[in-house]
Amino acid sequence: MKIGLIGLGRMGQAMGKRLLAAGHRLVVHNRTLDKATPLVAEGAELARTPLEAASDVELLLTMLADDRAVEDMLLGERGALRGLSAGAVHVSSSTIGPACSRRLGAAHDAALQGYVAAPVLGRPDAALGGELVFIAAGALDAIERCRPLFEALGKKTEIVGTDPPRANVVKLGANLVLASMIEALGEAYALVEAHGIADETFLRVVNGLLQSPVLGAYGKRIARNAFEPSGFELVLGAKDVRLAVETGESAIVPMPMASALRETFVAALAEGLGEVDWSVVGRASTRRLTTVGSTP
Amino acid sequence: MKIGLIGLGRMGQAMGKRLLAAGHRLVVHNRTLDKATPLVAEGAELARTPLEAASDVELLLTMLADDRAVEDMLLGERGALRGLSAGAVHVSSSTIGPACSRRLGAAHDAALQGYVAAPVLGRPDAALGGELVFIAAGALDAIERCRPLFEALGKKTEIVGTDPPRANVVKLGANLVLASMIEALGEAYALVEAHGIADETFLRVVNGLLQSPVLGAYGKRIARNAFEPSGFELVLGAKDVRLAVETGESAIVPMPMASALRETFVAALAEGLGEVDWSVVGRASTRRLTTVGSTP
Amino acid sequence: MKIGLIGLGRMGQAMGKRLLAAGHRLVVHNRTLDKATPLVAEGAELARTPLEAASDVELLLTMLADDRAVEDMLLGERGALRGLSAGAVHVSSSTIGPACSRRLGAAHDAALQGYVAAPVLGRPDAALGGELVFIAAGALDAIERCRPLFEALGKKTEIVGTDPPRANVVKLGANLVLASMIEALGEAYALVEAHGIADETFLRVVNGLLQSPVLGAYGKRIARNAFEPSGFELVLGAKDVRLAVETGESAIVPMPMASALRETFVAALAEGLGEVDWSVVGRASTRRLTTVGSTP
Amino acid sequence: MKIGLIGLGRMGQAMGKRLLAAGHRLVVHNRTLDKATPLVAEGAELARTPLEAASDVELLLTMLADDRAVEDMLLGERGALRGLSAGAVHVSSSTIGPACSRRLGAAHDAALQGYVAAPVLGRPDAALGGELVFIAAGALDAIERCRPLFEALGKKTEIVGTDPPRANVVKLGANLVLASMIEALGEAYALVEAHGIADETFLRVVNGLLQSPVLGAYGKRIARNAFEPSGFELVLGAKDVRLAVETGESAIVPMPMASALRETFVAALAEGLGEVDWSVVGRASTRRLTTVGSTP
Repeated sequence: MKIGLIGLGRMGQAMGKRLLAAGHRLVVHNRTLDKATPLVAEGAELARTPLEAASDVELLLTMLADDRAVEDMLLGERGALRGLSAGAVHVSSSTIGPACSRRLGAAHDAALQGYVAAPVLGRPDAALGGELVFIAAGALDAIERCRPLFEALGKKTEIVGTDPPRANVVKLGANLVLASMIEALGEAYALVEAHGIADETFLRVVNGLLQSPVLGAYGKRIARNAFEPSGFELVLGAKDVRLAVETGESAIVPMPMASALRETFVAALAEGLGEVDWSVVGRASTRRLTTVGSTP
Repeated sequence: MKIGLIGLGRMGQAMGKRLLAAGHRLVVHNRTLDKATPLVAEGAELARTPLEAASDVELLLTMLADDRAVEDMLLGERGALRGLSAGAVHVSSSTIGPACSRRLGAAHDAALQGYVAAPVLGRPDAALGGELVFIAAGALDAIERCRPLFEALGKKTEIVGTDPPRANVVKLGANLVLASMIEALGEAYALVEAHGIADETFLRVVNGLLQSPVLGAYGKRIARNAFEPSGFELVLGAKDVRLAVETGESAIVPMPMASALRETFVAALAEGLGEVDWSVVGRASTRRLTTVGSTP
Repeated sequence: MKIGLIGLGRMGQAMGKRLLAAGHRLVVHNRTLDKATPLVAEGAELARTPLEAASDVELLLTMLADDRAVEDMLLGERGALRGLSAGAVHVSSSTIGPACSRRLGAAHDAALQGYVAAPVLGRPDAALGGELVFIAAGALDAIERCRPLFEALGKKTEIVGTDPPRANVVKLGANLVLASMIEALGEAYALVEAHGIADETFLRVVNGLLQSPVLGAYGKRIARNAFEPSGFELVLGAKDVRLAVETGESAIVPMPMASALRETFVAALAEGLGEVDWSVVGRASTRRLTTVGSTP
Repeated sequence: MKIGLIGLGRMGQAMGKRLLAAGHRLVVHNRTLDKATPLVAEGAELARTPLEAASDVELLLTMLADDRAVEDMLLGERGALRGLSAGAVHVSSSTIGPACSRRLGAAHDAALQGYVAAPVLGRPDAALGGELVFIAAGALDAIERCRPLFEALGKKTEIVGTDPPRANVVKLGANLVLASMIEALGEAYALVEAHGIADETFLRVVNGLLQSPVLGAYGKRIARNAFEPSGFELVLGAKDVRLAVETGESAIVPMPMASALRETFVAALAEGLGEVDWSVVGRASTRRLTTVGSTP
């Protein structure tokens, strides 16, 4: 299968590598082209523009930072929309807002192209191992045509409806729950530390209750102040929480805890932690950054 | 072993039943004495005052609602402190604040009595099945003497230090993390519902990620608006979150998300939901109570 | 002077009336044209499109609800930008975000038109009486050309810079302070009421301290639950607080109290209070709406 | 008149000085006795215990930091309650919670002593100039007997009921409104600064609207980072906001904005700003402390 891939951040690169390994042909593009070098070395073709990356492929996969990046790459003058053939499908795996997703869907419809919103759960190493989870929404035939891609990269595909923005909303909700858990751990750690209790002791108790491997992994990372290398940059997590709150507000859904959570992310950004793993957020909100500063 | 038990709410009653079944002798007391009837029917002895319940026992177990109830039962004129023999141990399983726990410890020390703070994780049915988890702190020999009690009621005892208030702080932290997850689910449900997505669909995705049985159980309860019968009353959860925030403030630990969470509990109390299962909190904060109103 | 006026909500109508009274010639447009009837009856000319309203005028005044309305009216196919002569000035009095203001400014620059951001403080009756305060930013010569308009409608013009978005930010900040004061009053009223103290007694004390006529007027309105007729709809206030928080976030400024304030507005919207005077917000946040329900 | 005065912080000292100047006889006590030196030099009599300070006086005035200090001074073994004559009146001007005030009232009732809760608005220099405002509640005859004291120290006495805790609640509410305005200014300043606008420019606009001399004075102080010398220590303001939120929670009044405000104070305490003027709070919440650091 010939696949276009736009967006070569860490996740995009891992996806590309896995797709090549699975035997697919790949055309890749990134705003800064040098990020394409490793994939080109493994056999991918370099596209100089998004339009070019979308031309003559069956599927176009995008893995970009935010609404604006997606709209620039798709809807710009040399954007992918103009390159994609009628009948080809755009699989948008970026975590974007539902309004942006809706605009994309309308544009693809008008161009007789397919559009599947398919954000993912999992970090780059899950992509490399084909262990992602896709949250997909779109026309069922379009989803069907994405199967080879989903199977190469993921272990499971959760279909949440035929209206693409739904997948984006589910992803925002999932990240909100995850971010809340991280911040709750951070605040609880600060509370117990102030009473002489080691974070890992507390984690043992709380995860003895919750028994979540993901909570356990985050809990250890935070307890050890092991925020480098980053698995998911705080600036991206901040964007996701912001999108969740804004999406709620657009639908007139009060989200008071999410809104407070959002402020903890802004505070962490203000501390210059945007490129650090997002699990650092609770250290900033509880003013425990001296601890962070001593990270090895 | 002869054990005094003060506090016969649903958890206290379940503990009493289990202790009798394990062959211990039990003297029970409750502010409203009629709550003792079921246990007396199963062989427990009725004490008319806390002092009486503490007299001539090796262990005194208390399972009360809050700081004030514990202080009333222990430190009042006919309080348990005056009844307990030197050398006997008070096991306090109530979720109370560390300051109250410290005052209790000092009083017991002065009376040459042992004191172990041992709040529990688990609901009444876990007590009945001997499946609680104890979070214990206190002098090691005092903890040692509580072993038969811990073994009858629990499947695990996490010892978090020799200073009793630590166990209370760990318990507050654990409930804070749990309450945060519940509220996060509630807010995320409101967000996805507003976009036409069923709560259970969302839960499948998010718990596919987190894989926590406890999150799964709460998630189902909330999705189904199955808040009756209550497993843990909202008024108690509200108290725990308040204690966590106040304990943080006393130690000058900012807890911005916990503070917002606390307001969601006050708002739910203001809606008259104090006796409902605490997992209803997110319905109140997101103004989704019409849904709750339609609970079967 | 010939002036175009787009946006005939209550504020726009009051401005139009005053401008006519001051002897200016007026061309008016509104999305729903029937709102123009009263002004046409007083001598204004009706424009069927924004383009038409902007043609052949020296100044174009816009008084619209939000970013989207402004962009639709200005930048659309039959938008005002295409009608405005080179050298004419667009005075934008809507409360919009700085990013939107910047886009407008760039568009007008490219068209060799002037652009002054000039949001106002004051309610419609202040416009009718020529008592508004303009917060203006833009090129000094453009501001100079707006003088007759400022003088007809306002008692004071605060010039806050030459970069138009600055005026928008100042206006957002001012509304944030005002909204905070309103919510603080609402929460304090609930607190004192719960202790048997009349709102007006409390107001007498607090405004004895602060001595602000505006605080006094809002305080009375809230104390008397006199939310109808609305002076400023809650849905507009909600938008302004949201814009303030989002503008802060874009500049990486944590605004934790503003963020909580924002949620109180969303909660009030969720209670269906969007068209009520924004001073009702504290009644919703403190769950005192039964009181509101009994408004005469 | 012979007056006992307990609590010689800056406000207590100013009150004492003014009372002496007005010709009253004064017996003074403070936890750390050396603070009494200046007043003794001006003719006050030194009391070594609270009991002694309350003996043989007509009025006992207390001006202490918090609930605990008041209870220690009044209800302890050598506390003032045991010294005060039947018929004498305790005027409590400390900002304390209503529950503490109620306990005091009951104790004085039992001892046939009068009790008037009379917290004040105004800073030490207002006390020196006899310009305080008293918010008083208590039995009318008891209030009547305090008149000479109120007249010496204040320019106005607002009587808010016969139940003493009401005065405390009104004071907490007033400080909540004031603290909210300070934080709102702090957040708005950060917002406008980030867009290149000077704080004082913004203040001119916003106080052109609100026209509050108190807001103007705080606004200038913050704009100039003139937090030293402190007029009212942040640690005291933090306590007041905490008391307001806790008092609300006890009465099941949600106060979401106040709760967020409270966190901003805790965050400022965590930055070590407890002894700085409370108007610094917004600098901490918006992470603008580098600016504060450069205070002259």
